[in-house]
Amino acid sequence: MPATINDVATRAGVSTKTVSRVVNDEPGVSPTTRERVLEAVRETGYAPDPAARSLRTGRSQVIGLAVPELGQPFFAEIADRIAQAARSHDLGLVLGVTGEQGQGEADFLERNPGLDGTILYWQGLSAAHLSAEAARRPLVVIGEYDHDAVDRVTMDNERGITLALEHLLALGRERLAVIGLPEPGVRAHAAARRRTAALRDALTAHDLTLDERLLVPSAEWRRPDGARCARRLLDQAVPFDAILAFNDGLALGALAELRAAGVTVPDDVAVTGFDNLDASRYSFPSLTTVSPRLASYAAHAVDLLVARIEDPSRAPRTEVAGVTLMARDSTIGGGALWPSR
Amino acid sequence: MPATINDVATRAGVSTKTVSRVVNDEPGVSPTTRERVLEAVRETGYAPDPAARSLRTGRSQVIGLAVPELGQPFFAEIADRIAQAARSHDLGLVLGVTGEQGQGEADFLERNPGLDGTILYWQGLSAAHLSAEAARRPLVVIGEYDHDAVDRVTMDNERGITLALEHLLALGRERLAVIGLPEPGVRAHAAARRRTAALRDALTAHDLTLDERLLVPSAEWRRPDGARCARRLLDQAVPFDAILAFNDGLALGALAELRAAGVTVPDDVAVTGFDNLDASRYSFPSLTTVSPRLASYAAHAVDLLVARIEDPSRAPRTEVAGVTLMARDSTIGGGALWPSR
Repeated sequence: MPATINDVATRAGVSTKTVSRVVNDEPGVSPTTRERVLEAVRETGYAPDPAARSLRTGRSQVIGLAVPELGQPFFAEIADRIAQAARSHDLGLVLGVTGEQGQGEADFLERNPGLDGTILYWQGLSAAHLSAEAARRPLVVIGEYDHDAVDRVTMDNERGITLALEHLLALGRERLAVIGLPEPGVRAHAAARRRTAALRDALTAHDLTLDERLLVPSAEWRRPDGARCARRLLDQAVPFDAILAFNDGLALGALAELRAAGVTVPDDVAVTGFDNLDASRYSFPSLTTVSPRLASYAAHAVDLLVARIEDPSRAPRTEVAGVTLMARDSTIGGGALWPSR
Repeated sequence: MPATINDVATRAGVSTKTVSRVVNDEPGVSPTTRERVLEAVRETGYAPDPAARSLRTGRSQVIGLAVPELGQPFFAEIADRIAQAARSHDLGLVLGVTGEQGQGEADFLERNPGLDGTILYWQGLSAAHLSAEAARRPLVVIGEYDHDAVDRVTMDNERGITLALEHLLALGRERLAVIGLPEPGVRAHAAARRRTAALRDALTAHDLTLDERLLVPSAEWRRPDGARCARRLLDQAVPFDAILAFNDGLALGALAELRAAGVTVPDDVAVTGFDNLDASRYSFPSLTTVSPRLASYAAHAVDLLVARIEDPSRAPRTEVAGVTLMARDSTIGGGALWPSR
């Protein structure tokens, strides 16, 4: 009878988890322990066999993650955080890239039947199709669509937009521009719709209206789109003293375009973003932005999926990841925060 | 007998590729053609079945890509470009994240036996192990290791470093600092070793030596590391008028730290990077950097893999992707390039 991981663990006097770490060449094991485990592996003739293990447990120990694209840092940073969270559960991860409109979502689920479960950044699948998929396999949805019949992680867009708006108002800004609103006739992604609704609610709560000419639509949210939106604001010569951008990509593009036009941030115009990309701490000026705390967002998603795998009949849950405002130079100026970052 | 994709194509008067696009909900088909194809699908009762197709062809039409991490934009941008290149070959893509030292490389290959082939950004696997894997399955290696027994895409590090060095020399810079060299006692990744060797060769070719105190090691190449390297240069009070950074992450971190210290770029210090990240066009000042032309790099990798899948016995090839220097404000100043970008 072939040796098992338990035989190796017993002989080496360590946990099976430690044996697993050593044979999978993972970190977190001291050199002397590693050597002892490898000796026990040699002595017992143990051969780890993922296929055999998978047959035994009925699980692959691999989960899937499907995101729309990786060219936008937001999705890459989410994927990296989820890969880390999966690793902390001893789970492998395969990623799929499903396209900006989520064209490949059904395909990714179809083509990866061997996964223990999948986390899907939901962009294009119909709600009915999603429900059907979730009935067939463990599935957790991330992103900004509402769908209470499936485990789901979303972020607190309402609070995020409110924090950004109130921050600009507290600084005395009076002519607010907003960039990244849905474009008429173009399919808006869910985050655009959620943040637009959140903005309307926050304005109502403050009994405020904005100059319609300062509400700039953009279906895409990358840096060049932010530059284009800022250019439009500059060209139309309607005064503004702040830009609330619906994500950091837009805000970073706007910063570059304002600078090229000789507009000083934040003296002339204050700018806020949303997402807290790594790049935003290093922009000039550093970017004030809403942080969705991606590490806990990722942990929620993996925890929900693990719970779903272990109990397929549990009631679906929605986790709303909290947000915080990172106040940096693009609104409060001065560069004083830099050395203490 | 069930209808085939050919039956649908014939009835709709289009190519099978167009049928495939429509049933997989991919772009590039006009609305009227799409409608005609869907009608033909209904009339013939055709049901696309990936499992059946896979049994027929023996192929899954899915390839793998394993990269060390996605938190560094360089890897995310490569992954995004390779996903696009795969899509243009009608191939699905699953990604693996293998860890900074490539700990999960063997695991990813082991756990995904159903893939038609895999592109691996090679970090940690031994050369012997890699050869054994490549003998068992179609495999293309990307990254900076030398290994001529396996299909491989690398970039022209030598030319890249030479271009950056000669650009700084042509601008009259005389006291060059270099950041990102291997750290003594820490395992250096292959790109660090290649760029260091390239720098030595380029210096020899120009009969130059640099002040050793201006050669700053850093095992990690992210923005905070670049800030730390710049801080060290500033603290040691050895004059320097240029920083050649071994990647854009380091350069972007250095720009922020120099700015915080009141050093003007490029007037006081010129800065160059390597990779041409999306972020580097929008930094302040915009970053002069070596572009590895990632789109053709990605296309080479997918083309090599497709050729390998189709002819497993062909001789291994190495493609060296070309590089260009993107001269921007961090060396040539002025901002004049901005409107014409």
